[in-house]
Amino acid sequence: MYRKIIPNVVSETDVSTITKDATAHDAAKAMAEKNIAAIIVVDDQAKISGILTERDLARKVTALGLDSNTVLAADIMTANPDTLTPDDSAGDALELMNSRRYRHLPVAVDGKCLAVVSIRDLYSTVKEALEEDIKETEAFIFGDRYGA
Amino acid sequence: MYRKIIPNVVSETDVSTITKDATAHDAAKAMAEKNIAAIIVVDDQAKISGILTERDLARKVTALGLDSNTVLAADIMTANPDTLTPDDSAGDALELMNSRRYRHLPVAVDGKCLAVVSIRDLYSTVKEALEEDIKETEAFIFGDRYGA
Repeated sequence: MYRKIIPNVVSETDVSTITKDATAHDAAKAMAEKNIAAIIVVDDQAKISGILTERDLARKVTALGLDSNTVLAADIMTANPDTLTPDDSAGDALELMNSRRYRHLPVAVDGKCLAVVSIRDLYSTVKEALEEDIKETEAFIFGDRYGA
Repeated sequence: MYRKIIPNVVSETDVSTITKDATAHDAAKAMAEKNIAAIIVVDDQAKISGILTERDLARKVTALGLDSNTVLAADIMTANPDTLTPDDSAGDALELMNSRRYRHLPVAVDGKCLAVVSIRDLYSTVKEALEEDIKETEAFIFGDRYGA
């Protein structure tokens, strides 16, 4: 079965966002409150401008010994990130994330972010799909669906 | 096929470690240099004392607006973490990490850390195992191994 990013992997949700002039401290607070590892940075039309992760905070603020109140989201985000569309397949998205070592990708239509997909979400979906394949193949062998 | 944590998922390696009195800044620098998302914190017998992740840095330093030079690894690590043994199965380890929402676990013998396993490593291994199951089942159906 073909599994689409929306709705098979994630649902459309209220995506947490910050603006480009938010500080690293603000970004970290928002991510901690929402219990998320990546947050979408938007421009003044509410379109995706970048994505900012816990890794960016660790590497571009803490590892450099910078003050998180003086560093802006715009300076440490990944600008213009790759995005998925709602109709992309879970398997293709997983290949993309594995090959480029992404952990999170925005799902976007016309620049607006509808959801954020994690590699954990995708692996779960692809694993389920594979397990279902195995069950169907076994059902075929053992005749549960014989003649169906 | 039963897949063991060592050697099927990861190899025994030189594990990067820091001591409990390292600062958050030191920890972040070490993690950035090694390109890792989690680092093992050891005591003075080189035994595992805790694990410290990019998430800990983001949530317990940056989100609180603290100075990374005044926060110690011991204060923000997860102390006495769950560990895997080299002979654990990849599938069981994945269940553990999924149910407890871990992304990284140390592989330990007698308190010494032999490797660190990420959920990404485990998913890849389990996915490969499932794909192999499917191939073997299909080979059975189509007779490649008939009578073998």
